[in-house]
Amino acid sequence: MADHKEPIFDVAQLAHVEILTPKMNDTLWFFKDLLGLEETERSGKSVYLRAYEDYYHHSLKVTEADQPGLGHVAWRTTSPQALERRVQAIEAIGLGRGWINGDHGHGRAYQFTTPDGHLMELFWDVEYYQAPEAMRTELLNRPQKRPLRGVPVRRLDHVNLLCQNVTPNKQFMMDQLGFRLREHIILNDGSEAGAWLSVSPLVHEVATMRDATGAKGRLHHICYWYGIPQHLSDIADVFSDYGITIEAGPGKHGISQALFMYVFEPGGNRVELFGDAGYLIFDPDWKPITWHESNLAKGIIWFGSPLPAEYFMYGTPPVQKEVQERTEEELVGAN
Amino acid sequence: MADHKEPIFDVAQLAHVEILTPKMNDTLWFFKDLLGLEETERSGKSVYLRAYEDYYHHSLKVTEADQPGLGHVAWRTTSPQALERRVQAIEAIGLGRGWINGDHGHGRAYQFTTPDGHLMELFWDVEYYQAPEAMRTELLNRPQKRPLRGVPVRRLDHVNLLCQNVTPNKQFMMDQLGFRLREHIILNDGSEAGAWLSVSPLVHEVATMRDATGAKGRLHHICYWYGIPQHLSDIADVFSDYGITIEAGPGKHGISQALFMYVFEPGGNRVELFGDAGYLIFDPDWKPITWHESNLAKGIIWFGSPLPAEYFMYGTPPVQKEVQERTEEELVGAN
Amino acid sequence: MADHKEPIFDVAQLAHVEILTPKMNDTLWFFKDLLGLEETERSGKSVYLRAYEDYYHHSLKVTEADQPGLGHVAWRTTSPQALERRVQAIEAIGLGRGWINGDHGHGRAYQFTTPDGHLMELFWDVEYYQAPEAMRTELLNRPQKRPLRGVPVRRLDHVNLLCQNVTPNKQFMMDQLGFRLREHIILNDGSEAGAWLSVSPLVHEVATMRDATGAKGRLHHICYWYGIPQHLSDIADVFSDYGITIEAGPGKHGISQALFMYVFEPGGNRVELFGDAGYLIFDPDWKPITWHESNLAKGIIWFGSPLPAEYFMYGTPPVQKEVQERTEEELVGAN
Amino acid sequence: MADHKEPIFDVAQLAHVEILTPKMNDTLWFFKDLLGLEETERSGKSVYLRAYEDYYHHSLKVTEADQPGLGHVAWRTTSPQALERRVQAIEAIGLGRGWINGDHGHGRAYQFTTPDGHLMELFWDVEYYQAPEAMRTELLNRPQKRPLRGVPVRRLDHVNLLCQNVTPNKQFMMDQLGFRLREHIILNDGSEAGAWLSVSPLVHEVATMRDATGAKGRLHHICYWYGIPQHLSDIADVFSDYGITIEAGPGKHGISQALFMYVFEPGGNRVELFGDAGYLIFDPDWKPITWHESNLAKGIIWFGSPLPAEYFMYGTPPVQKEVQERTEEELVGAN
Repeated sequence: MADHKEPIFDVAQLAHVEILTPKMNDTLWFFKDLLGLEETERSGKSVYLRAYEDYYHHSLKVTEADQPGLGHVAWRTTSPQALERRVQAIEAIGLGRGWINGDHGHGRAYQFTTPDGHLMELFWDVEYYQAPEAMRTELLNRPQKRPLRGVPVRRLDHVNLLCQNVTPNKQFMMDQLGFRLREHIILNDGSEAGAWLSVSPLVHEVATMRDATGAKGRLHHICYWYGIPQHLSDIADVFSDYGITIEAGPGKHGISQALFMYVFEPGGNRVELFGDAGYLIFDPDWKPITWHESNLAKGIIWFGSPLPAEYFMYGTPPVQKEVQERTEEELVGAN
Repeated sequence: MADHKEPIFDVAQLAHVEILTPKMNDTLWFFKDLLGLEETERSGKSVYLRAYEDYYHHSLKVTEADQPGLGHVAWRTTSPQALERRVQAIEAIGLGRGWINGDHGHGRAYQFTTPDGHLMELFWDVEYYQAPEAMRTELLNRPQKRPLRGVPVRRLDHVNLLCQNVTPNKQFMMDQLGFRLREHIILNDGSEAGAWLSVSPLVHEVATMRDATGAKGRLHHICYWYGIPQHLSDIADVFSDYGITIEAGPGKHGISQALFMYVFEPGGNRVELFGDAGYLIFDPDWKPITWHESNLAKGIIWFGSPLPAEYFMYGTPPVQKEVQERTEEELVGAN
Repeated sequence: MADHKEPIFDVAQLAHVEILTPKMNDTLWFFKDLLGLEETERSGKSVYLRAYEDYYHHSLKVTEADQPGLGHVAWRTTSPQALERRVQAIEAIGLGRGWINGDHGHGRAYQFTTPDGHLMELFWDVEYYQAPEAMRTELLNRPQKRPLRGVPVRRLDHVNLLCQNVTPNKQFMMDQLGFRLREHIILNDGSEAGAWLSVSPLVHEVATMRDATGAKGRLHHICYWYGIPQHLSDIADVFSDYGITIEAGPGKHGISQALFMYVFEPGGNRVELFGDAGYLIFDPDWKPITWHESNLAKGIIWFGSPLPAEYFMYGTPPVQKEVQERTEEELVGAN
Repeated sequence: MADHKEPIFDVAQLAHVEILTPKMNDTLWFFKDLLGLEETERSGKSVYLRAYEDYYHHSLKVTEADQPGLGHVAWRTTSPQALERRVQAIEAIGLGRGWINGDHGHGRAYQFTTPDGHLMELFWDVEYYQAPEAMRTELLNRPQKRPLRGVPVRRLDHVNLLCQNVTPNKQFMMDQLGFRLREHIILNDGSEAGAWLSVSPLVHEVATMRDATGAKGRLHHICYWYGIPQHLSDIADVFSDYGITIEAGPGKHGISQALFMYVFEPGGNRVELFGDAGYLIFDPDWKPITWHESNLAKGIIWFGSPLPAEYFMYGTPPVQKEVQERTEEELVGAN
């Protein structure tokens, strides 16, 4: 009993994500008019948004840029002490970038990168969203009235990062930040093609998948949560009517049991909408689920729409076309 | 920062509940044929059951008895060390009963009572359910195939306990076990009429509500989870067709945002079915939601079916009729 | 076989309903911002609206007036010849009012009243809605894009009329217009308390219920259709957030198997939202379902929210309060 | 006005379908244990089944045979007189086969074939299903309690027939039987690739699609109806768990707006499950929707899972493999 390694409980949640877009207006139309996000602030080249059940100042920062892609991923710790502990752990392996004074919506934060180069930050002090009078609700545990625009998502759910090399990134999230491995894919050659990790009963707040183009530091997708299966059909209907490209779904992944749909926001970033509650992991001694090539098809699609080849290639920022095509050939050749 | 009290992360989850029934066969028909639970063992006067997404040997132990009511509530800790810490904390205030060797499905466990007298236990060692060949599924994160009987619930969700006095019971769950207070009701006289507590992002794994009859140690209800709103309508339809009394619902509580329905299993215990995902709390510094008499109506019912007066009176075991009627008068008089 | 009476197939559908409101702006906010109706025309004291799957110029005409209530109910026939046949049948019993030249959205129409005094009209020539460029959809069988406002209803479903005397009104709809009786309520004294009638597989396009106040010609409710159960929960959530009074529901009627919810639009008229598809009647020799007092409770509520006493009393225009209270006493006394 | 052609209202509904199976036991397991159908009779090589909201003796007759395929399609008329009229119309063009004495569940029937050779029958006299005591429900408009097996479908919806030549079959259904054309596909060469027809507000009780193999008289699929979108996900989950091949779906067709899923019952016949209510056509003067190659992709899939090439090739009975492959080449070549 004495040798049971106790879990680390220092990271509490995915607090927000920053994405880059070359088409700010269209991206905002997508998130605000179709997904019902609320704008809370504009500053410089950035607009801050939140879903109607997000409690903090923002869960999404959209920043104008030449190319779509990931700005950064921000995690909130379970206490100020937990923040200090994690900073020490990160500094110890040399991936720290140092403290910033904060941003709109939160206090000082510690920046670092994953081994693959994705920019992240940790913080404790946060600003809670205060609804204006007209948007205050009698449902006291809801930060504002349900929006009357589009099919409103409820909260930020997770982020999926492409990595040149899955394993070291997974290990970093586990060792330095205390994430638990929930599910992963091990190919026949023994390599790890994807990993799903969480600090809560959610199956993942972060996933890392192998970047088939060999690029580093790219974003595969961010995901907002409905929790209500019908809303996936509703927003799919809206997307079809209003010219948004649905890449795949609705369907159900075996991995994480997510009722999924993937679309491209007009700026080019892939966005997932999560339809139901998935399954939740309360077992404190969870044995990670391993998907092998022999059962991977069921892991990728339990039922519904298949994933196109592009799903495994496209990320943001896009890589040069020649690289992408070459890799695609190899991929096809390998089948 | 140094004075921020860090949370306790020692209790992981509600592992199982034992209920008592004077009508074993009918109770089993209810749980197995209508709610789709699987029987995993029979021993003495007890039958062990689990929902198809419950990972352990059982989540419900049904024991034959003269009266319906609560047997015990079992919690699994986050580690063996966490178990020892919690046992010490309980022993320190004199509510411990001592160790038992375990039961079907789990190893040694420490028994104790809440201040109100509900029997509980804590354990670490647990037996995982192994599906027989025919019930094994290719969905590797699901412990068995989805049953083809009734409208199958997915997992045990929470337990709601009636208490003569809410506050000391709430405080015990917080101080000795590390639960966080999520929502509560404070009446105009300053007394606490109910409290919802959790160790996970769920709004509650346990609630305590004031027993209007003044009795101690009673059960209000146990709750199984669907997570899919439509399934509440489906099972309501089944209940109406097959003669099960629906007490209230489907409807949506403001408190916990649960899509609820309450029914009585044939043995007399109240069972809640939880339709959707509710809302989840990831904020590590959550400020408890306080419902006052002025907004309590919305807290109890956000939309849908109202709760009958009986909801606030009936628990198991039932109290003598004269006590109940007297209290009901006082209650009515008080309005 | 020769003596089998063949059905009349002359009335095709409920085309539109006109309601009166003393609060035009608020009524429009309700229908447009919450229920997603589109405004197609304003003329005099009237505004014309339609749901996004309504094919004609309008399905709802809202006219400003001192009191809420019914303007008229309009039916489209299955052919121009059918129109002539029905006009003759109505004229033959003296309930005709004569031809009007039409209105925005349709051609000449024949006006008449039910025995209870509700104004109705029949027509053939109709104007189809043409969506403006920006609202045209590639879903060719849908007249416009799905709106991005509120939780949009899909089409007008039925109208429910209060009658001093149910039977003659039912008989008129059957004999003069060709409606089939689908379900009705027969009380212990042999009187008919309600009747549900249709010309299509829908259980009803029109219902008549006894007016407990003894008044004549009143409106009980109009109903718009979702067809998707989840949308009832969605709009209930919106109603609770935005201050709209939900009278009853969501719940399921036994009669018609409607997944129902009743609310009051700000002008005072009761509006039903129909959540699912109910059941459809294709049997050409349908034997009407008779609900007696012995099973009426299940007929009124199969599951979910009960109906308040007011449901059986309130209609528009409201009657004087003294009348209403007296009748309520009699009703209570009768139980 | 005098020259408006009035519609024929002589056929009321799709009453039942007979399918052939080489694997009776497995086919029955599929329909009874997974889809919840009830067996009402066995006779010779046939088993009679119905869904729980089907009012007659059966809606599906399963007959043992060497090959899967269609037995016959049966329509009920709106009156005995209507039956005589339709028989005369069929006899006039020489497609009649003559009267049979009836079968279990219905009286004398008139048999005929479509121009493509599908066997059909028309009848009036029918036997209503009477539930045994234990399955009687207080929901008087429901013929029996909701089954506790699988994810029970509610009623037979439609049949889809492959035809060597769509147009004459469509025309026969319209001219001799009174069906209305609701939607159809016209290719660039002017030929008709598919037609959806109905006698009720449903978009179709029968569809005919061009048989890409050039064969005659084959079955594409039969369809049972849920009417509740969630049930498609539920049964998809069951299918994946229990080894039933999902060909496509869940997804939404543009044509008919059906929320669809296609699977193969173990005998080899394709079965569609219809998830929602689709859209209903009440307009008595409906202008058929024409899908051209330019917008056909949206017509086939509005959102969700694409259809595999096989969907357009496979029917029952299967044709010889060489024919199928040849045609497939031509099809691919044509793109």
